[in-house]
Amino acid sequence: MTRSKSANIRGRKPRKDTENSAKKAPRGRQGGKSVVASEGWLYGDHAVVAALANPARKFRRLVLTRSKFEALDEETKGRIEEQIAPEFADKDAIARLLPDNAIHQGIALLPSPLPDHTIEDLLGNPDLAIQVVAVLDQVTDPQNVGAILRSAAAFNVAAVIMPDRHSPPITGVLAKAASGAVETVPIIRVGNLSRALDQLAEQGFWRIGLDGQAEQELSQAAATLEKVAIVLGAEGKGLRQLTTQKCDLLAKLPISSRVESLNVSNAAAITFYELARSTN
Amino acid sequence: MTRSKSANIRGRKPRKDTENSAKKAPRGRQGGKSVVASEGWLYGDHAVVAALANPARKFRRLVLTRSKFEALDEETKGRIEEQIAPEFADKDAIARLLPDNAIHQGIALLPSPLPDHTIEDLLGNPDLAIQVVAVLDQVTDPQNVGAILRSAAAFNVAAVIMPDRHSPPITGVLAKAASGAVETVPIIRVGNLSRALDQLAEQGFWRIGLDGQAEQELSQAAATLEKVAIVLGAEGKGLRQLTTQKCDLLAKLPISSRVESLNVSNAAAITFYELARSTN
Repeated sequence: MTRSKSANIRGRKPRKDTENSAKKAPRGRQGGKSVVASEGWLYGDHAVVAALANPARKFRRLVLTRSKFEALDEETKGRIEEQIAPEFADKDAIARLLPDNAIHQGIALLPSPLPDHTIEDLLGNPDLAIQVVAVLDQVTDPQNVGAILRSAAAFNVAAVIMPDRHSPPITGVLAKAASGAVETVPIIRVGNLSRALDQLAEQGFWRIGLDGQAEQELSQAAATLEKVAIVLGAEGKGLRQLTTQKCDLLAKLPISSRVESLNVSNAAAITFYELARSTN
Repeated sequence: MTRSKSANIRGRKPRKDTENSAKKAPRGRQGGKSVVASEGWLYGDHAVVAALANPARKFRRLVLTRSKFEALDEETKGRIEEQIAPEFADKDAIARLLPDNAIHQGIALLPSPLPDHTIEDLLGNPDLAIQVVAVLDQVTDPQNVGAILRSAAAFNVAAVIMPDRHSPPITGVLAKAASGAVETVPIIRVGNLSRALDQLAEQGFWRIGLDGQAEQELSQAAATLEKVAIVLGAEGKGLRQLTTQKCDLLAKLPISSRVESLNVSNAAAITFYELARSTN
C-alpha cells in the first residue's frame, strides 16, 4: 500500500487520537514503529484558506460557521463555490470533529492528502534555481515542524526533507502552526536520510549541520556557498552521529553560554534568515 | 494585595485548570479580565534544574522519580541537599500534580514565585550596559512567550517587558518552553505599556516596532543604534495603534510575499540575532 493511499483511507475517518498520542510520545521515540502520514482535518483561517487555494488538493468537506463564511475574502468564496458545498455549523459542532483543544477559529476542512514529493522530483528539475533546502533529522514535535515550514516559506527555502520514520504526520496541529506553508513548501519524506544527503551532495549542495559544538559560526560557514542543505537535529539530542558524518561542515549560531540551545524552530528561523542573506 | 502575595497563596494550591484555560482562550482576548501571575509547579529537566540554581527562589516541594534523581548532576544534587527534601514518586503520580499533558520528564518543583522586577530597577542601574530590551505588546500564548525568553537569554537581551494585562502568567508550560530562561532573564510586568515606552526613551533607548508593513528592514534600521527597545505585537493583530505611535521607527524582516508573517517567537529570535550583531 502506498503512503498516499493509506492517507486517503485514513482521511475518510480521521482518528481523534492521532494528534494527542503524537503529543504524548516522548521526543524522538515512537516505540520503533514507522510513522505513517495520516492527513485528516485542517483547521484555522490560514491553514484552510491556503489549502483551498492549492490546485493540487481536492476537498471532501468544509464545515464552518455562517459568520466565518461571510468574513472570507471574495477569492476564497469563489473557490468554495467552484469546488465544494460548505456545511454550516456552530463552533462546538466543529470542535467535535477535531482533536481536543484544536483552535479552529470556526472553520475546518477535510481535504485530500498532499501529493507525494520525491527528492528526485526536486533535484531533477533543471529549471529550478535552488539555493537552500532544509533537512530535519528526527524533529518530532508537530508544532515545531509546522513553524519551520512557515519560516521556510518566508525565506524561500525550496523544500523540507525529513525521514519517513520519526517525523510527525501532516495533521491539523502541524498545518495550523505552518499557517498555510504546508501548501507551498514541498515536504519530502525519505526512507533513508543518509542516501538523501548523498543525493544532495551529488547535485552540488553543501551540507551544513547545525551543531552548538561547532567551531565556525553559520554566517562565516555559509558566506561563499551557493547551494546549501542545512541539517537540523532534534532538540536535546541534536544531530545523530551518522547524520553528522554526512555533513560537509558543521556550524553554530552565536548564542550566549547562558543557554544550552535554542528551540529548534527558532534556530531554523535564524538559520534560514542568515542563509537567505549570505547565499544571495 | 500585591501580585507577589497573590502568587504566594496560589502557589500553595496550584489550580490544575490554569494552563488549560489559558490555552483555550483565543489569542489576545482574555474576556477583558486582568491576568494575574499565578505561579505554580514547574516541570521538565531544564526548567527545574535552572530554578534550583536560582538563589532568588525558595522551594516548597520537589517531586521526582528515583531514576531522575540519580541522573542529576552533582551540583544540582548538592543544591537539593541544602534546600529541600525530595519526594520520590512514579511518573503517573507526578502527572497528577500537573496540568493535563504536561511533559514533565519525571521531575516537578513547587518553588516560591520569582521576585518582582520593575522597570525602574532595570533602568536605574547605572552599572548595567544594556543594549537591547524586548517589549511584548499583548503576546498571549505561553509557549511563544517562553520561547522568546529562551532566545532573549541566548542573545543577551537584558529584559522582557510586557503589560500586566493580556500577558500569560509564568506557569509551567511557559517555563518549560523557556528552558530555564525565566530564571535568568528579568520579566518586567508593567501596568501601562505606553508609560514604559516613555521611560525607555528617557533612558536613551530607540524604540523599534516590528511591523510587516514597514519600509525599512531591521538590519538597516538598527545598524547605527546603540540602545534598542524592540517592540513585538501579537500574532495576527500586530502592534496596537497606540504602541505604534510610541515607536521611534518601524522595521520589518525581509520575508517573502508568500507568507503574511512569521510565528512571533520565530520573528523574535531573528530580531534578537540581528540586534546582537548590529548593535555590537
